[in-house]
Formats: sequence, structure tokens, C-alpha cells
Amino acid sequence: MQSISYYQGIISSHFETLSLQKEPKNLYEPIEYILSLGGKRLRPVLTLLTSEIFDVECKKALDAATAVEVFHNFSLIHDDIMDDAPLRRGNETVHEKWNINTGILSGDAMLILAYQFFENYEPKTFRELAKLFSKTALEVCEGQQYDVDFETRDDVSIPEYLKMIEYKTAVLVGAAMKMGAIVAETSEENKNLIYDFGLNLGIAFQLQDDYLDAFGNPETFGKQVGGDIIENKKTYLYLKAIEFAKPEVKEQLLHLFSIQPNDNTDKIASVKEIFNQTGASEATQKAIQDYTFKAFETLEEMQISADKKTVLKAFGEKLMNRNV
Amino acid sequence: MQSISYYQGIISSHFETLSLQKEPKNLYEPIEYILSLGGKRLRPVLTLLTSEIFDVECKKALDAATAVEVFHNFSLIHDDIMDDAPLRRGNETVHEKWNINTGILSGDAMLILAYQFFENYEPKTFRELAKLFSKTALEVCEGQQYDVDFETRDDVSIPEYLKMIEYKTAVLVGAAMKMGAIVAETSEENKNLIYDFGLNLGIAFQLQDDYLDAFGNPETFGKQVGGDIIENKKTYLYLKAIEFAKPEVKEQLLHLFSIQPNDNTDKIASVKEIFNQTGASEATQKAIQDYTFKAFETLEEMQISADKKTVLKAFGEKLMNRNV
Repeated sequence: MQSISYYQGIISSHFETLSLQKEPKNLYEPIEYILSLGGKRLRPVLTLLTSEIFDVECKKALDAATAVEVFHNFSLIHDDIMDDAPLRRGNETVHEKWNINTGILSGDAMLILAYQFFENYEPKTFRELAKLFSKTALEVCEGQQYDVDFETRDDVSIPEYLKMIEYKTAVLVGAAMKMGAIVAETSEENKNLIYDFGLNLGIAFQLQDDYLDAFGNPETFGKQVGGDIIENKKTYLYLKAIEFAKPEVKEQLLHLFSIQPNDNTDKIASVKEIFNQTGASEATQKAIQDYTFKAFETLEEMQISADKKTVLKAFGEKLMNRNV
Repeated sequence: MQSISYYQGIISSHFETLSLQKEPKNLYEPIEYILSLGGKRLRPVLTLLTSEIFDVECKKALDAATAVEVFHNFSLIHDDIMDDAPLRRGNETVHEKWNINTGILSGDAMLILAYQFFENYEPKTFRELAKLFSKTALEVCEGQQYDVDFETRDDVSIPEYLKMIEYKTAVLVGAAMKMGAIVAETSEENKNLIYDFGLNLGIAFQLQDDYLDAFGNPETFGKQVGGDIIENKKTYLYLKAIEFAKPEVKEQLLHLFSIQPNDNTDKIASVKEIFNQTGASEATQKAIQDYTFKAFETLEEMQISADKKTVLKAFGEKLMNRNV
């Protein structure tokens, strides 16, 4: 087994070989652009890693890994339009650099391109990969829709929120890993177990994102600490605080989440104080641990060697101990 | 063999059985809406018809036909956003009835749903259908991009224009028919011939659309006659007129295509006069005939019975003698 950075290297080199300098330029240049912005390439790394967990050379999984990353970037382009986001990975978003129409059309092309990367597999594998991909892609759309819907709702429940992050984020992590397992032609049981491993780790990862957004170390956290609070985002922390808070504290939190002051320093401090005081912070850390544990539980039944299990567990732990 | 309206009936009934009343509502309701607006269902009809040309029950081709129609409607939603179109089939467009974000996301979901309809086929057929579908879908995106690019260019050549309408419109007609042939498991040669039949008929169809937009009978033509002239659209008629016109007439046409008067009556009359006088109208009718003939030529080599060829030819002639 190799290190994460080893797989990242393979992905990066592979993306450099993709021939996207095609006509019409206005369709393909934005695709090249977004793919060149890099990022951690976490999902395709998981596809490669998983294929080796199930004993095939990761090269065999490279096309599936590419499909996953191209799809992920498609969803970023369209989400950034919907969120009216100016920046992505520190650079202009596609619809800012070009325009909304370009973002729509180049995104569409990327979704189709993602499917094309599966064409290098044999019919049976192709069908299995494409089927999982379609199911997952549709769930990601549903998750994005729930996220949009939640913005204007004030009665979002914890189970609804968990379903939203599961669809919007975690299913693609599960699918990325299962694709490695499909390419490796392991047992159905192993395929489903690794999917559950990725799914639960994906949920834990997103909950940790919520947590770090408020309580991360400003020195090491990539984004602005408190960003979700500034935007009045109903994260797990917020929903738990609303659930736990006494009437007057709840009212205070509702008020804080209805204002948009010029200077957010006091607002962020007050909200974090409420998150801590109500037990929402603790509940969030507990949930992160629970989902991480759920992921690790799937390893028990998985038909792989003990050292492979250690690799997966180490990966999960690394992900969960991050502070970026 | 059955009539077009017979196949239309099958498609309509089938679309009524699709269960799209799913959550989240804001994602699936726009999909139900656009699919319920109907239209001629020309492309899926061709898939069904073709499957019977190659001797299988059209029922077998119903999922592929559905994929084609769902894809076509996906492209309408996204194109309507890009064109800022208020109406589609006499009803509000999706982004007008809801908003742009809904149009983007529901469109994305439809593109994915289209792929899912292939899942009911065996792996080999699935792969063949999905591969043709991806290639075609990407070409449709490229065609749309060329169309957008042409708006701001004044040096579009006739071959470039033909490539644009081939990609934007004709490839999906060819693919719709080839999918019927794939489901019927006919020979590779037949598959390619029926694709060329559809492709050339599709180009002829689009050229005729250009022609009828200017010279159609206002009593029977569905859209506003002269719409392309009002919008200064560089159609085949226009490009041919520019090619044929003497310098002073060319200048006059360029002027007419630079203005947007409140009352377009005179502008439309003058432009049509130039289309006729320069020989552009005649050249367009000739091109329509040439592409129709090219389509019919493919029938000669096709390995099907004479009466099947008659059916395809009759269909082509009906399409080409339409005045709507």
C-alpha cells in the first residue's frame, strides 16, 4: 500500500495528460481551468486506494477515479452559480471568469465527460460503475436541492440535515470507494461494506467541517473561521443548539441568526459561546465520533487482511484529526 | 409497421406512467412540468419506429426512447436559460416559472435520469447505448456552444453553420434512430446506415426550419413568421444571401441585420426580398433536397425489406413536406 500523496501524484499527472484543448474553446477552456485548480483530489485518491485494498493495481481504477473527480468539479461549477460564489480554491469561479451560460454548458459537458471515462471498462464493469454513478449523481442533485430548500425553512430537523449532508457530500465518498472495489471485482459484500465505510466517514467529515468552521484554528483552517455563522447557515452545531437551548437562549440565537452586522466579531463570539454553553459543540463532536466509529465497524466484517484494515483505519483517523 | 401517431400514443402513455412525484419536490416538479408540455415527441417516435424497422417489438425500445426524450427536454431547459426565453411550447419556461437555479439543477437531474433509463438493458446493449448517448450529448453541448459563439461573430462560414446544426440538432435524430437499431441488435452496417439516414434528415429538417421561419405560411406555421429575421439570426438563408449578394445589396442586408425597429414589417419584407433576389431561398431549398436525398441514399445499402424502406422514405417525405 502507498501513501495518500503517492495517489495524489498519480491523479495529478493523469489530469495533466487529459487532452481538453478541443474545439469549441469556450466550452473546453473552462473545464481545463477548473480541473487545473487542483484541490486535495480526495475522492479519486479513495478510488485508487480502495482498488489496491482489494488487490488490483490502482492504474486499473484510474478512469473511474477520473470520472469521480470530473463529476465533483461539475457539481462545483453549478453549485457556485447557484450560491453566487466569487471564489473557488482561491481563484475566480467559472461563471465569474466567463459567465453564467458558460458555467452551465461547460458543467453539462463535464457531467457527460465523466460518464465517458467508464467506457474503457468491459461491459459488465461499465454497467455497474455507470449505474452506481447515476444513482450517486442524482442523490448529489437531491442533496443540493435540500440544501437550497433549507435556506428558507426554519423547521429543519436533525434527521433532515443529516440526510442532506449524506446526499450532498457523503454518497460520493462512498461511491468513490465502491468504484475501486467494483474495478477490483471483489465480493458484493465487500463492495457494500466499503461503500458504508466511505458513506459514514463522509458524514463524519462534513460534520467536522461544520465544527471546524466555528472552532477551527484560524492559523491552520483554510477558510475564514466563523464563515457559516456570518452567513447564518443552519449547520449541525446550530440545529443542536436550537434543540438544547432554554427559551431565552434560543431566542437570542434566533436573533443572532437574523442579523448581518458589518463587523461580525461580536456575533461570532456570542454564537460560539451559545454553541458551547448549550452542549451543541459537545454533541457535534460526539456525532463525529459516532459516524467515524460506524465507518470503522464496517471493517470488522470486511474480507481483507488485517494490515489492509489498518491502512483504512489510519486513513480515517488522519482525516478525522485534521484541523484544515 | 404502425403510423407515427400510434408511436406518439405509446410514448405519451409511457410518460404518464413515469413516477416523478418524488422528493425533493422543487427538484422533480419542474421535470414533471417540462415533460408534461408534450411536443411532437419526434425523437422517441423515431427510436420506436426504427426498432420495428429492424424487426423487434417497439416496446423493447421504450426505455431508450424515453432516455432520448428526457435528454432532449434537459437541453431545452438549459438552452432556454441561456437564451433567456420566456416561453416553451406556449407555456412558461422552467426558469421563468421557478428560477434559474431550479432550471440548472432540475436540468442536471434530467441528464442523469436519461442515463438511468438504459439500465434496463443487458450490459452489452447498455454500454453501446450509453456510449452513443454520451458522444451525442457532448456533441449537442458543442453545437450549443457554436451557436452561442456565432452570435458575436460576423465571419461564420457555411460549413461552420452546417456543422453547428449537425451537432445541435441532427446528431440526436441520428442517435435516436441508431438506438432503435442497437436495441434490435441488427448489423453494425445497418446501425451506421440508419444513423446517417437520421443525421442527414435532421440537417434537412433544421434547414427547412430556417426556410419556414421566413417563408412559412403564417396560418399554419406554429411560430411567428420572420422570427429569425427580427432576432438578426445568421441562418442558412442569411449566410447564403451574404455569399451571393452584390456589394450594395450585401451592405443593405448587413444594415438590416444591425437594426431592431419597433415595427418589423418592413424589415421582414426587405430581408425576404433579398433572400429571394440573391438566390439564397433557392439555394436553401436545394440544400434541403440534397440532404433529404443523401438520407434516402443510405436506404439503398440497408439490409431491410423493400416495404420497410418505403416506410422510412414516406416518413422522410412527410417530414420534408410539412409546413409547420
